[in-house]
Amino acid sequence: MTTPRFSRTEIVNTASLAAATETISKHHTIHEPVLIVGTGLLGTSIGLGLRSVGLQVLLTDPSPSAQAVAEDIGAGQGLTDEDQPGTVVVAAPPDVTGAEVIKALRRWPAAVVLDIASVKVAIAQEIAAAVAAGELTAQDAQRYIGTHPMAGRERSGPVAARGELFTAAPWVLCTTSETPQYVIDVASDVARLLGATIYHMTPEEHDGAVAQISHLPQIAASLLASRLQGTSGQALQLAGNGLRDTTRIAASDPSLWVQILTANAEQILPELHGMKADLDRLINTLSAPSASGARLDVAQLMDEGNRGQARIPGKHGGPAQGFAQVTVLVDDKPGAIVSALQAVADAGVNVEDLRMEHSSGYQVGMLEIAVVPGHKKHLVNALTKLGWKVL
Amino acid sequence: MTTPRFSRTEIVNTASLAAATETISKHHTIHEPVLIVGTGLLGTSIGLGLRSVGLQVLLTDPSPSAQAVAEDIGAGQGLTDEDQPGTVVVAAPPDVTGAEVIKALRRWPAAVVLDIASVKVAIAQEIAAAVAAGELTAQDAQRYIGTHPMAGRERSGPVAARGELFTAAPWVLCTTSETPQYVIDVASDVARLLGATIYHMTPEEHDGAVAQISHLPQIAASLLASRLQGTSGQALQLAGNGLRDTTRIAASDPSLWVQILTANAEQILPELHGMKADLDRLINTLSAPSASGARLDVAQLMDEGNRGQARIPGKHGGPAQGFAQVTVLVDDKPGAIVSALQAVADAGVNVEDLRMEHSSGYQVGMLEIAVVPGHKKHLVNALTKLGWKVL
Repeated sequence: MTTPRFSRTEIVNTASLAAATETISKHHTIHEPVLIVGTGLLGTSIGLGLRSVGLQVLLTDPSPSAQAVAEDIGAGQGLTDEDQPGTVVVAAPPDVTGAEVIKALRRWPAAVVLDIASVKVAIAQEIAAAVAAGELTAQDAQRYIGTHPMAGRERSGPVAARGELFTAAPWVLCTTSETPQYVIDVASDVARLLGATIYHMTPEEHDGAVAQISHLPQIAASLLASRLQGTSGQALQLAGNGLRDTTRIAASDPSLWVQILTANAEQILPELHGMKADLDRLINTLSAPSASGARLDVAQLMDEGNRGQARIPGKHGGPAQGFAQVTVLVDDKPGAIVSALQAVADAGVNVEDLRMEHSSGYQVGMLEIAVVPGHKKHLVNALTKLGWKVL
Repeated sequence: MTTPRFSRTEIVNTASLAAATETISKHHTIHEPVLIVGTGLLGTSIGLGLRSVGLQVLLTDPSPSAQAVAEDIGAGQGLTDEDQPGTVVVAAPPDVTGAEVIKALRRWPAAVVLDIASVKVAIAQEIAAAVAAGELTAQDAQRYIGTHPMAGRERSGPVAARGELFTAAPWVLCTTSETPQYVIDVASDVARLLGATIYHMTPEEHDGAVAQISHLPQIAASLLASRLQGTSGQALQLAGNGLRDTTRIAASDPSLWVQILTANAEQILPELHGMKADLDRLINTLSAPSASGARLDVAQLMDEGNRGQARIPGKHGGPAQGFAQVTVLVDDKPGAIVSALQAVADAGVNVEDLRMEHSSGYQVGMLEIAVVPGHKKHLVNALTKLGWKVL
């Protein structure tokens, strides 16, 4: 579908990333100007990204200040009554996306309209209901295509927007048998120009997929994190990366997730029922932990967890890979981490993955570097020779 | 209790970490030789660490090859019949720890015996049962102290052992009102010489704490990951850091965790019941997502997740802090990451936290750097000026 943009021989400096960007065909079928409805994080980022490749972008948002900020950032110009957008990107909250899509289809009878909400069936149903109620013609409805760019940041709002936000991020296009090719082409071009990786799914496939790989993890993290309200400060001092990893996304925005979870309830429920069955089984088992078969039960749950986790693709969408981990102690000050990584680079070893863990009482950090297993021994030797403490 | 070893003015090279180590008092009350029972990852690491500060270490393991590897690595010498260890560290699997503690208390009537198992009440109960059955005197039992070093790695076995494994890791000492001071002192000295941060708790407090901050997260990750067995490959292509983070520890070793979860079942069950109640409530709510009050219900769960997650201490045990995040695109080859971090260091900004995210289709990585919020703008400007793509 899309070919990788960067080969492994690209040099690091963004001058070369920019050069590589130049080689992407700028040819596109998007009808300008592009109107972005909703200048939050995603809408403003789309505006910035499309402007950076030379498209004319208009903006509108119910909040005058949000729109003003987006204009000031350079994401586009404010929509006026005379404007006739050829393409409309609805970047509004899921709750109002359907209504905004219908408004846009009616107001600009030649425009292609796409949305970017996290759920697709609910929006499609709103469009279909509008057609059934006579508020929209079937032909008008064909100018709409549901899409979902899977990018985001922990902050929200236009101030955090970046045009590069969608670089190498998945962007799902949800076509049906009735979607005209030119509409698909416009949506594809938007995603492609913003640097995303395009996937095609039906709305049902999409909602089922995100229920499993995004919505259920969010629920699990929130369920787990909410337990911590009853955890003592002393116990929390013992918290390690396991707790941090499993609860990290519990810091998500409630108002957004309420909309997503209620809109996708139908696809989420089977997953919740499955999890409930496993949890009930575990509760039964641990209520009689010395009973015959109890250990086998728990081992089966752990083993199924192993198998499921191993199915998650590794780097760059390839097969799940086992990398070897090298943990280096670093002092907690500017330059410390770069010094350690310089030593790794000098040893000629590529850093496949990277994370930090912090010590509970000391101003020392642990830099956890994933490397190809065959390189680990050499790297540990090289670092140790230079005086680094390797765990 | 323990003072931080490293101040922020320490220079990065481990020569200075070593110098700082020198200033730690080597005075200790440990009776040598120290015998380590069980040369797995932790036992062998303890051996290496104690030998590196000059203690005489003996080793024993039911597996001749595991013991031979540990000896070859330099973790200690094999135990002989003539040896009289003054201190015994039982580093066996939780299932056999109690029996090994009792054996050691009986065989060496002057030795202090400590264990390192992940659960403490179960072990204490085994010791008490032995006293009640007349297999051990109460005085003998007083020479035992339960401890738990909270360090570890995804690999197991002596080959992965490192003496520095416990540096800045929490090490819990579980004392009761009967534990003699000299026994506490020996255990404290072991932990301190290995560089750990010492915490004192009763066995019940310990088991309750680890149930909440370690065992429940493990269960949640395994429950969530096991669902992925039914997830299509196409859906998994959309997986992002949220799924990866929440399922990372689902790759844990089933045989070890079966022992831990069944041994600590009593403390884990209340947490599972609480989670079940929340899950049932959510299932009810999402079964009628348009009902009045449904959204409030879901919002409450999300909000409680926010609150719980915010209670997890930030870096170095301090209050949970909000850092600002700066995401830089890096090419995926040796030297790329160090080049980006050099630019951050040149800008004079400290890296508070660090992780990588990988793109699904491209050979490009996203380096996510946490910085003090007040430095973010300066850093983004500095990086952008140098040509880096900042998301």
